[in-house]
Amino acid sequence: MRGAVMYSPGDVRVEERDKPQIVDPTDAIIRVSASCVCGSDLWFYRGVEELDWPAPMGHEYVGVVEEVGDEVTSIKPGQFVIGSFWASDNSCEICRSGYQSACVNRVPMGAMGAQAEWLRVPLADGTLVATPGMPEDDLIPSLVAASDVLGTGWFAAVAAEAGPGRTVAVVGDGAVGLLGVLAPKQLGAERIIAMSRHESRQRLAREFGATDIVEARGEDGVAAIRELTNGLGAHSVIEAVGTQESMMQAIRSTRPGGSVGFVGVGHGVELSGADLFWSLVHLHGGPAPVRRFLPELIDLIWRREIDPGKVFDLKLPLDEAAAGYRAMDQRESIKALLIP
Amino acid sequence: MRGAVMYSPGDVRVEERDKPQIVDPTDAIIRVSASCVCGSDLWFYRGVEELDWPAPMGHEYVGVVEEVGDEVTSIKPGQFVIGSFWASDNSCEICRSGYQSACVNRVPMGAMGAQAEWLRVPLADGTLVATPGMPEDDLIPSLVAASDVLGTGWFAAVAAEAGPGRTVAVVGDGAVGLLGVLAPKQLGAERIIAMSRHESRQRLAREFGATDIVEARGEDGVAAIRELTNGLGAHSVIEAVGTQESMMQAIRSTRPGGSVGFVGVGHGVELSGADLFWSLVHLHGGPAPVRRFLPELIDLIWRREIDPGKVFDLKLPLDEAAAGYRAMDQRESIKALLIP
Repeated sequence: MRGAVMYSPGDVRVEERDKPQIVDPTDAIIRVSASCVCGSDLWFYRGVEELDWPAPMGHEYVGVVEEVGDEVTSIKPGQFVIGSFWASDNSCEICRSGYQSACVNRVPMGAMGAQAEWLRVPLADGTLVATPGMPEDDLIPSLVAASDVLGTGWFAAVAAEAGPGRTVAVVGDGAVGLLGVLAPKQLGAERIIAMSRHESRQRLAREFGATDIVEARGEDGVAAIRELTNGLGAHSVIEAVGTQESMMQAIRSTRPGGSVGFVGVGHGVELSGADLFWSLVHLHGGPAPVRRFLPELIDLIWRREIDPGKVFDLKLPLDEAAAGYRAMDQRESIKALLIP
Repeated sequence: MRGAVMYSPGDVRVEERDKPQIVDPTDAIIRVSASCVCGSDLWFYRGVEELDWPAPMGHEYVGVVEEVGDEVTSIKPGQFVIGSFWASDNSCEICRSGYQSACVNRVPMGAMGAQAEWLRVPLADGTLVATPGMPEDDLIPSLVAASDVLGTGWFAAVAAEAGPGRTVAVVGDGAVGLLGVLAPKQLGAERIIAMSRHESRQRLAREFGATDIVEARGEDGVAAIRELTNGLGAHSVIEAVGTQESMMQAIRSTRPGGSVGFVGVGHGVELSGADLFWSLVHLHGGPAPVRRFLPELIDLIWRREIDPGKVFDLKLPLDEAAAGYRAMDQRESIKALLIP
């Protein structure tokens, strides 16, 4: 089968790989309908993080179940399914508390290489959620968004306690940041301030529910948020970048007692304990337990209440994956959909 | 009047100071019935933090109102009152959200010098809470504990989401840590693990509700907590020290999705954003909004449901304040009560 492999930073190739087989009796094999390139894939593409090269790529996926292992009971061949970037048993104590991304039996889907024609999904019963039927083609981008970026933006909004009566600020205008605008809108937030200096992303933020746009960054961005919130800061701030500057911008934009939901994978971020102490903010984040939210997100998409698939401004055949990485690296594209 | 003044690290003297007067029309003057030495005073005593020497000391107090300014409406002369270490208006948006320690008009009581015979309390209506009547003498230690250490331990427990069905671990066996055992007990926590290697403090922790004692620290302490919690970590962890080691011990003792409530004033603490990201914990803390909890805490003390005054294992006349600092610095005393 065809699959994307990264050979070194900047070098992505689509090549012949072995078609995956059932390994464990809890596995499923799915025929991938769509995958995509993630902002977090760019950490490797840019050489900020290492992989064991050459590495199969991709951890976002939707598809049709082709085969299941002997111990799989709820997922059936023929179902259209969505899973998250962590395979999880959805039954351990941590999963039951809603933190499937820290499942005691979790398996990172990145290692499976979802940018491919077929994919092995471990812990299929716990990991995969089936749609009510075969989706129409135009729902596919939104469904694959639920696999990571929508679920991650949603988790950030929940972690930031976004909801009725709350002013939410969003740091980061990538796909997660933009869906970090859509999520608080759905959760009933009163005001949503998107921080972006890119006209096309600002437009999408407005479509997703942003009421205000702030172009300033860093301390100027913090000052702008304070000016919009009686000098107090936002109740809820979503951090969707993962740099020192964005993290401090998020914390300093939050009022005392407010909440920061951070989902940007921290790179070189160091937080001063004293700053955090005096800020009096709530800080919560990490790898999003997308599985917790999948049933609700699929339902919203299925009923066409939300259209998170709009973050895909580049749609490519899988064979052109390298162009997708390049466009996202250059910020020419928000997010690239790959169709096998 | 007599009052404690720190001249330099290690040098505390009780000397004649001017009796405070009403300055602002929202002030009250109280005759101090009891004050005490705080663990946070030791940062100055040990030379870790600087003050503008010579500095009046003390920010924990109870007493009888002697005089109020023209704009004070709810607090009356003759009332027995308790306030927190931040004077707050209790009416701004931040106060109303329960974060009086970040009141937009807050005034640090430390600057007033509560280790003295009289004390000026700014924003008296917002800051002070009156008891139902004159307390019996044996309630005074518990009431002054409510002014800071009990309120701070309580906030830490609330920040750590301690409650029914939860296992709570407490890092730190000073007065705040010990009351960080009492608070989750009151909040209905199922299991409370006190981390202490001092026999007398372990005993008090047990009296306050600890179900388990862990003597190990650092990584060994983390391992011990994990062993007691099916390898998962505690649901709620209270951090009441403020060092790098204690903060990391707290975070690493917490299960994914669990909560750390930290109230030790961070000194030289640096948190790795990546560690925090992968831990998936909730982190909340800072200067405790004790005012939020005062009515409830006073009620519990008045009804003799709790006896937080037990943390005072040294009772001294105000004139011997220096001995109180010395005993706490040497860890010979958990907390020293000062009676003017």
